[in-house]
Amino acid sequence: MKKTQRICIITHILTENPNRDFSLGTFAEQFGCAKSSISDDIKLVREAIDAAGLGYLETTSGAKGGVRYVPYISRRAAAHALEELRKAFEDPSRMLGSGFVYTSDIMFNPKIVRGAAMVFAKKFASAEADLVVTVETKGIGVALFTAQMLNIPLAVIRHESKVSEGSSININYFSGSADRLQQMSISKKGIPHGSRVLIIDDFMRGGGSILGILNMLKEFDAQPVGTGVVIVAGGRENKKIPDYVPLLILNDQEDGRQTVEINPDMLTL
Amino acid sequence: MKKTQRICIITHILTENPNRDFSLGTFAEQFGCAKSSISDDIKLVREAIDAAGLGYLETTSGAKGGVRYVPYISRRAAAHALEELRKAFEDPSRMLGSGFVYTSDIMFNPKIVRGAAMVFAKKFASAEADLVVTVETKGIGVALFTAQMLNIPLAVIRHESKVSEGSSININYFSGSADRLQQMSISKKGIPHGSRVLIIDDFMRGGGSILGILNMLKEFDAQPVGTGVVIVAGGRENKKIPDYVPLLILNDQEDGRQTVEINPDMLTL
Repeated sequence: MKKTQRICIITHILTENPNRDFSLGTFAEQFGCAKSSISDDIKLVREAIDAAGLGYLETTSGAKGGVRYVPYISRRAAAHALEELRKAFEDPSRMLGSGFVYTSDIMFNPKIVRGAAMVFAKKFASAEADLVVTVETKGIGVALFTAQMLNIPLAVIRHESKVSEGSSININYFSGSADRLQQMSISKKGIPHGSRVLIIDDFMRGGGSILGILNMLKEFDAQPVGTGVVIVAGGRENKKIPDYVPLLILNDQEDGRQTVEINPDMLTL
Repeated sequence: MKKTQRICIITHILTENPNRDFSLGTFAEQFGCAKSSISDDIKLVREAIDAAGLGYLETTSGAKGGVRYVPYISRRAAAHALEELRKAFEDPSRMLGSGFVYTSDIMFNPKIVRGAAMVFAKKFASAEADLVVTVETKGIGVALFTAQMLNIPLAVIRHESKVSEGSSININYFSGSADRLQQMSISKKGIPHGSRVLIIDDFMRGGGSILGILNMLKEFDAQPVGTGVVIVAGGRENKKIPDYVPLLILNDQEDGRQTVEINPDMLTL
């Protein structure tokens, strides 16, 4: 196999498997060549990926030498992804009145939510999370892609306990502007004891759902290490939780219109 | 920029964006080189991807000449992904009795469900679907990755109508061995009129949920073009729908154990 072919296949495999370790030996065996050749190939891939601002390759040397691809969205690409997201939300035909916005198609559009997930993966790259947690349903897409980028699993909290979850932990929480009492439930197997958890959700108004998740995490002695929310209605006043990272902010204007702006902090990551 | 660098970046971009068209001009502009050089680069990428059984590049020539990466899981890689899936399900600690299996961690494990989605994307590559549809919650992961591979959107049917969905279509259906009456709901905007729909779900026992989805599709004059289910309990007898493609089959043994086997058709795709 020629060098350019090897480089192409190594790039493909690393790209498809972010944050996963591959030993040089695995590639050497696959391509039937020396580890030193693979090492040279990886050096070239690293330089190219780095020069293009697409991420970086972490390499470890020695007998167990290996490589992992750490995806990294450049500021320019992040600004592009966030603007695409913002435009999708701002479409007036989505505004259902009373501050409700139709977002299901956005939240399950793989291309759009993957872009949002890339931004979260960059923001929380050093949080050392070992689990992403969301509450069903519309945040599952962005949470799943974030988990994929970070190469960690996702746990989804349900709104009611299911027989297929086995024994479960259930908590009550107040959600929405109407402070309606709701329930959250997850299997006792759902969150490993003591996990470091990255919370990802699609939408936040008062923060009740996320406060619910934080209370659920206490039941598992799990530690929240960050909270990312795709779109948050209004500013930081009247929120039930102090720490969260929104990608977009939804504001009611005096004339009744709603505007959507990008969280400026996300443009300078 | 050197040729090996260009090849690396082109491979990365195509891999991250399955089934999306890129014009040679876009790459030529990005790299500041002639379209003929890009054309040569793409030829090399095509040969490498093809030789490694990772997919193929479809190219169109002429002024609007472009390229798209069609992901393709080899038989060997599919067998590996399906065996990983099978082993995950067969763990006896998941068996909750009465035929219920704890599967949430599998269904939201990005690596595992992405493997399942690769098999579905191969199986339904020529179905010309323009939408994937699932019903919440546990099938969302595999449905989302399948949609990503096919570069089409995903629509998620809910179990109750939500204010943020606007006007919705609601139907009733019978689900589960107990034939419990349940509801499905989706926004009137959720499924474009006349869509060609690939149905993806995580689990099927009697087929009630999928029959519900089929009835929902009729409300939108949408046409089902395939149904993929990760794991199906039992054989084809006593199912409410005739056509479906399982990846795994869950069987009750006479001694009360449950076994999980790979659908042999999936090993010869």
